[in-house]
Amino acid sequence: MSKKPLRVGMIGYGFMGRAHSNAYKQVGQFFPSQHEVVLQAACARNEAEIRKFADQWGYASIETDWKKLLDRKDIDVVDICTPNNLHKEIAVAAAQAGKMILCEKPLAMDSKQGAEMVAAVEKAKVPNMVWYNYRRIPAVTLAKKLIDEGRLGRIFHYRAKFLQDWTINADLPQGGQGLWRLDAAAAGSGVSGDLLAHCIDTAVWLNGRLDTVCCMTETFVKERKHNLTGKVEKVGIDDACIFMGKFANGSLANFESTRYARGHKALYTFEINGEKASLAWDLHDLHRLQMFDYKDEGKIRGWKSIHVTDNGGEHPYMDKWWVPGLAIGYDCSFTHQVADFIQGLESGTPQGPTFRDALETQQILDAMLDSAKQQKWVTVAK
Amino acid sequence: MSKKPLRVGMIGYGFMGRAHSNAYKQVGQFFPSQHEVVLQAACARNEAEIRKFADQWGYASIETDWKKLLDRKDIDVVDICTPNNLHKEIAVAAAQAGKMILCEKPLAMDSKQGAEMVAAVEKAKVPNMVWYNYRRIPAVTLAKKLIDEGRLGRIFHYRAKFLQDWTINADLPQGGQGLWRLDAAAAGSGVSGDLLAHCIDTAVWLNGRLDTVCCMTETFVKERKHNLTGKVEKVGIDDACIFMGKFANGSLANFESTRYARGHKALYTFEINGEKASLAWDLHDLHRLQMFDYKDEGKIRGWKSIHVTDNGGEHPYMDKWWVPGLAIGYDCSFTHQVADFIQGLESGTPQGPTFRDALETQQILDAMLDSAKQQKWVTVAK
Amino acid sequence: MSKKPLRVGMIGYGFMGRAHSNAYKQVGQFFPSQHEVVLQAACARNEAEIRKFADQWGYASIETDWKKLLDRKDIDVVDICTPNNLHKEIAVAAAQAGKMILCEKPLAMDSKQGAEMVAAVEKAKVPNMVWYNYRRIPAVTLAKKLIDEGRLGRIFHYRAKFLQDWTINADLPQGGQGLWRLDAAAAGSGVSGDLLAHCIDTAVWLNGRLDTVCCMTETFVKERKHNLTGKVEKVGIDDACIFMGKFANGSLANFESTRYARGHKALYTFEINGEKASLAWDLHDLHRLQMFDYKDEGKIRGWKSIHVTDNGGEHPYMDKWWVPGLAIGYDCSFTHQVADFIQGLESGTPQGPTFRDALETQQILDAMLDSAKQQKWVTVAK
Amino acid sequence: MSKKPLRVGMIGYGFMGRAHSNAYKQVGQFFPSQHEVVLQAACARNEAEIRKFADQWGYASIETDWKKLLDRKDIDVVDICTPNNLHKEIAVAAAQAGKMILCEKPLAMDSKQGAEMVAAVEKAKVPNMVWYNYRRIPAVTLAKKLIDEGRLGRIFHYRAKFLQDWTINADLPQGGQGLWRLDAAAAGSGVSGDLLAHCIDTAVWLNGRLDTVCCMTETFVKERKHNLTGKVEKVGIDDACIFMGKFANGSLANFESTRYARGHKALYTFEINGEKASLAWDLHDLHRLQMFDYKDEGKIRGWKSIHVTDNGGEHPYMDKWWVPGLAIGYDCSFTHQVADFIQGLESGTPQGPTFRDALETQQILDAMLDSAKQQKWVTVAK
Repeated sequence: MSKKPLRVGMIGYGFMGRAHSNAYKQVGQFFPSQHEVVLQAACARNEAEIRKFADQWGYASIETDWKKLLDRKDIDVVDICTPNNLHKEIAVAAAQAGKMILCEKPLAMDSKQGAEMVAAVEKAKVPNMVWYNYRRIPAVTLAKKLIDEGRLGRIFHYRAKFLQDWTINADLPQGGQGLWRLDAAAAGSGVSGDLLAHCIDTAVWLNGRLDTVCCMTETFVKERKHNLTGKVEKVGIDDACIFMGKFANGSLANFESTRYARGHKALYTFEINGEKASLAWDLHDLHRLQMFDYKDEGKIRGWKSIHVTDNGGEHPYMDKWWVPGLAIGYDCSFTHQVADFIQGLESGTPQGPTFRDALETQQILDAMLDSAKQQKWVTVAK
Repeated sequence: MSKKPLRVGMIGYGFMGRAHSNAYKQVGQFFPSQHEVVLQAACARNEAEIRKFADQWGYASIETDWKKLLDRKDIDVVDICTPNNLHKEIAVAAAQAGKMILCEKPLAMDSKQGAEMVAAVEKAKVPNMVWYNYRRIPAVTLAKKLIDEGRLGRIFHYRAKFLQDWTINADLPQGGQGLWRLDAAAAGSGVSGDLLAHCIDTAVWLNGRLDTVCCMTETFVKERKHNLTGKVEKVGIDDACIFMGKFANGSLANFESTRYARGHKALYTFEINGEKASLAWDLHDLHRLQMFDYKDEGKIRGWKSIHVTDNGGEHPYMDKWWVPGLAIGYDCSFTHQVADFIQGLESGTPQGPTFRDALETQQILDAMLDSAKQQKWVTVAK
Repeated sequence: MSKKPLRVGMIGYGFMGRAHSNAYKQVGQFFPSQHEVVLQAACARNEAEIRKFADQWGYASIETDWKKLLDRKDIDVVDICTPNNLHKEIAVAAAQAGKMILCEKPLAMDSKQGAEMVAAVEKAKVPNMVWYNYRRIPAVTLAKKLIDEGRLGRIFHYRAKFLQDWTINADLPQGGQGLWRLDAAAAGSGVSGDLLAHCIDTAVWLNGRLDTVCCMTETFVKERKHNLTGKVEKVGIDDACIFMGKFANGSLANFESTRYARGHKALYTFEINGEKASLAWDLHDLHRLQMFDYKDEGKIRGWKSIHVTDNGGEHPYMDKWWVPGLAIGYDCSFTHQVADFIQGLESGTPQGPTFRDALETQQILDAMLDSAKQQKWVTVAK
Repeated sequence: MSKKPLRVGMIGYGFMGRAHSNAYKQVGQFFPSQHEVVLQAACARNEAEIRKFADQWGYASIETDWKKLLDRKDIDVVDICTPNNLHKEIAVAAAQAGKMILCEKPLAMDSKQGAEMVAAVEKAKVPNMVWYNYRRIPAVTLAKKLIDEGRLGRIFHYRAKFLQDWTINADLPQGGQGLWRLDAAAAGSGVSGDLLAHCIDTAVWLNGRLDTVCCMTETFVKERKHNLTGKVEKVGIDDACIFMGKFANGSLANFESTRYARGHKALYTFEINGEKASLAWDLHDLHRLQMFDYKDEGKIRGWKSIHVTDNGGEHPYMDKWWVPGLAIGYDCSFTHQVADFIQGLESGTPQGPTFRDALETQQILDAMLDSAKQQKWVTVAK
């Protein structure tokens, strides 16, 4: 075959390691291009675990030291799926090694780290992208398209929530295998960096810059056993986070996230209200976009539930999958992201979110946490 | 006051007696006209019960013999809310007495009785109407309007269901106070006359004549104690009824009703699929009409949920009630029917469903039950 | 009849004047008691208008000066349906005249006025109530019952929104007939007093005291023509209002209201997340309560849509209306309120929200507007 | 690796060829077993097309004659994805060649063919399965589990619909590339074999044998251009099909399918009403199961929307995918089927639907079409 190989070095093997690997395997069949993704190496400190992962997913080799991975000539792209506290060091080194980089979100522990990472990739001129995958759920991509076409008019409101309920049980430990998201040292923050980061990425993409924020955070369970130390320790992350704010376009922001909303597993919703139309979306029914269009005739005006599964070529990405009416799953957002990354390489027009795009989200997160700490309004740094 | 009195004589005091009385009391405030409804007399055999009812609802007098009621000169309209087996005798006599008649549905025990009733009111030239109230739920009236405007194009399918679950318990008796609907002698039939009659009235109104039917009925609980006799007796009504059929416009009919659909209390739904658009409605959320409009632009096409509560004058009846977004209840359909009956009197254009309209429903019911009995397709008499 | 008359003197004849009058007329049939409501007098400055209103609704007499109404011996209850800026003066005078008082919400222009009103009714020992009618939508009353039974456990979150879209058009004037809600001089505030006041009343009732708030307000259309002066004037009300806060029980508050949410007419929603269960409600489908109950068995756990229309005696108020599955409308909340007011008179246990209850809402509104002005967190006065 | 290879020979490359291939590629990562699926050969008459398909999906070789494919020793499993009229010949030959067989649905053109196929695979004792994939949508599998646990009690009703709208346009040709489903010679029947076959497979699986049926069919567009002949020809398939019937357990059947229901793309829904509980499902939101459980406490009884995405091990298949709340797509049903087929091989307990299971569906289809033709009730052959 005359396809150009795109040899991936994956660092990490958790939830995201699996989601990305599935995308790498699937992209060639559904979004054929001039590139062929090759699962070249998987890397993690635990040799037994990474061996098992590599076997299951078909990675050709393994490494137990990410620095060795970066040294290899047969790796084109580094995929960073480690806990957040390792993103910066690996990314900067990978950029210096001239590798393309796909980094899990959030980009970094804070915007200071993020800025270093941006500087590194821009200096090295390596293609880079952050896995804010929800941009590429077809219903969300369609929302972007409708907004860009000017169908909403002046925007008044943008609302987003990301509600979960998996940490209500006070006996759940912080830290350790699969639980680093509850450990402030590894994750940096709680729901703000883990969940609101997604909401913010989508919001800025759809609605532009966020200028000011006023935020509150709460930690409902103050102490949890730490699996790594075996001791009961103070919980350092935010369990819940609410913020208000104002976008540069004058619209008002209302964001909320929590892991204590009984009954919601991954309820990421957003709604945007414009003068001419409104849009709403819900991850729990990710294949639908809700739209209210004021230009519809009065007596038959109503919220439309658009089943974004039409392969007539009108719904983003969907012409590549099955037939109208048949939904795709959450995992497809990653396949779309890889497809677009490759399309960016081939067209010379990088596809976002780049590290620089993701830095903006990081700056908002910093402003939020600062606001919550100081209990006052804060202007987002630019 | 210079309003013309419309003096009502109500026969019966059950569920429908209450629903109609509420409408009579409410119509003047919300749909003012040149007439004033006066609750002149309430009539039933049980003097204590009808006295109590008359007091509670403000009827000026009572009667215990409906023939005496018909003799009274101070009664303009007779409202028949008795069990079905009394409709014909009362209606014919009322017509002969020159009274206007509002009769509960179904019109009669069968089409033979119905035809006599039609003959009587047409001979006597008295205004007449049957309480198929669902036509006047604003969302249903809006559906009629949209169909009449030609928005659906050629019709392919009409589907209706009326699902309940209140007779699953085999210990429920048939007959007696509040239970005459389970007694074949009083009701004539089961879900066909009680529930499908509503579906058929709406269907014929929206979609025209039904030509042929093929029907099946089932009685799940074969014997029940009869409250009037005190004995366990064979159940004579249909517990469930399904029929297929063909409308004169070539569209296919699929109807079903049951009182054994666990979880549904009064789930009357219909859906009509046309070449250009489809409509759907559900009594459980009676203030919404669902519409799919093929002329909407492709990528934003979807089912619209129209909240039929706008008082901008575009939604039927709703300009008379509250403000947009505020739902009215089931009971308002009766208020609308009285308002339209009066409007018919004042305009000289009778409003349906008249006895003649309701006779068509009766003919379809006869064809259905005949089809179920003979297990074959039957042509509806005209 | 041996019923005790409850002679109402209604001040005002707008949207609320109609809604209350309908309740007065309906309560006796559906919620019979030892009292009989009598529509004794309707009062407004415009004689022609109040005459027309009195005729349509059956008020026995009219007044054009509310002071004269208060002087009448044949008035037992005064119902204040004027713009907000008149509530205090009338209520204080009515209390001094020994009248029972039913006052439209919000209680007053601010908590200072509210406190005077509370002092007046408590000194005069007159029964008093404020028309926060949403407490008595059956689904909302059911929510209260479930919370009081302890089914939710520790509460983490309370969220409410009240979204409308009727003032997006910049050509809409402020002030004048039917538009006093846009005039700061008459209304006191915008969406905060008009809409969030409802949300707050429900929230405090369901979830207890709110301790601190941080609020932002926005006026999207800065100037509008004023119908009373004929000039383009600065708009003094808040078009949108968002606030965060903390309840005394430790749960987090997130509230938002606007009249610029295209597609929403009266979308009052609330959701409360507890350790053991969550509840959600939406005015657009007011007959449904959503519940997620963690004690349900794992594999069949899900959000339940409870159709609060069962007359088996288990759903608040519904045994008095129709049969299961048949929804009642928005207007019934007022009928329930009158029924409960009378029940309070007869039982000697006053039913809320009393003026004192409503004062708490006023204090929260004051804190919110103060917070928005000062751009900082504010503690609610007690 | 020590895994046992399962070498697939795929015949066909259309919609189903792609769906099955995706499953073969995905199964090893998500449902690891002792077998490894190997894409050994793809077969079709058009060499250029099958070459392209094989390249895109990674098949190791191609064939242009299915008989040659069956001769190959390196093929363990034959997957039949041809139009229906070829199923029998290929399947019988494949059985004789000792191949395992996975055959697309419907099994055959009629039950006579189906019986020959069953005889062939049972004589050859080769593992066999039919791609009625909807059984393995997790929400549908959960429904099966709940029914098998006896949670529904006596069943009264089973209703299913499969509604589409893609053939309303009368200019759509019959036959030719991608359109063989409209050609009676290739497909055997229209919506009955294509869509209702799915509904029947699920129904029989969930609710047992169907004894009698009464059916009607309709062809709305009587003539269409045939792409293969270039002429306008009579349309031989059924555009719509409705049938009533009775299951062996005494419950009533109501089934309907059409390709003329404007607004529905692939609306496969079923509902089953039992004495103790009801279940409902809808392919358009395939990750949800609706349940009404009568044993829930009265005042909080309601339809539960179960988001079947929990990886706590309680929802079928879902522990193998992502995390709770994240939906999988339509395609996963095929992956589950391959996983179960392999599990059947390894456990020695064949997983359905086998050819024999699928024959029952074929017998029902025959009875339906016979009933429609003769316009009478027909007993299903056994």
